[in-house]
Amino acid sequence: MKAKIYVTLKREVLDPQGDAVRRALGSMGFEGVRDVRIGKLVEMQIDRTDRAGVEADVKSMGEKLLANPVIEDFRFEIVD
Amino acid sequence: MKAKIYVTLKREVLDPQGDAVRRALGSMGFEGVRDVRIGKLVEMQIDRTDRAGVEADVKSMGEKLLANPVIEDFRFEIVD
Repeated sequence: MKAKIYVTLKREVLDPQGDAVRRALGSMGFEGVRDVRIGKLVEMQIDRTDRAGVEADVKSMGEKLLANPVIEDFRFEIVD
Repeated sequence: MKAKIYVTLKREVLDPQGDAVRRALGSMGFEGVRDVRIGKLVEMQIDRTDRAGVEADVKSMGEKLLANPVIEDFRFEIVD
């Protein structure tokens, strides 16, 4: 199974990196770009077949390691 | 419109950060985790309605700014 975990900053957290990208895109002539947010994408192969167990583990990975609960949210998907 | 750009290391590029995460997950007792890869997720709001134009621009953003063509690939999706 493959797991994809998307880690993003919470809405209320400022994103200076995203602002820098937005300004750069503007100066390169790209129009209409607003509210750029930069996050992490964690992809992993999991050599198991118990989908429910894998889902529970990936949720726990997000909570314990991959996302900082103070400033980040995460969502994930499991792909067979 | 909302654009989501996923920037990932090319297959042949080593990912020490991914390896560190894999080892940490293993030491935390998560089983079966193999081949962890860390990438970037760039999300942005684009205040336009010409979907074809937006798609062309987002492709160009990936090529010119968001992904390093030497070591990274990117894919994107446009959400209405």
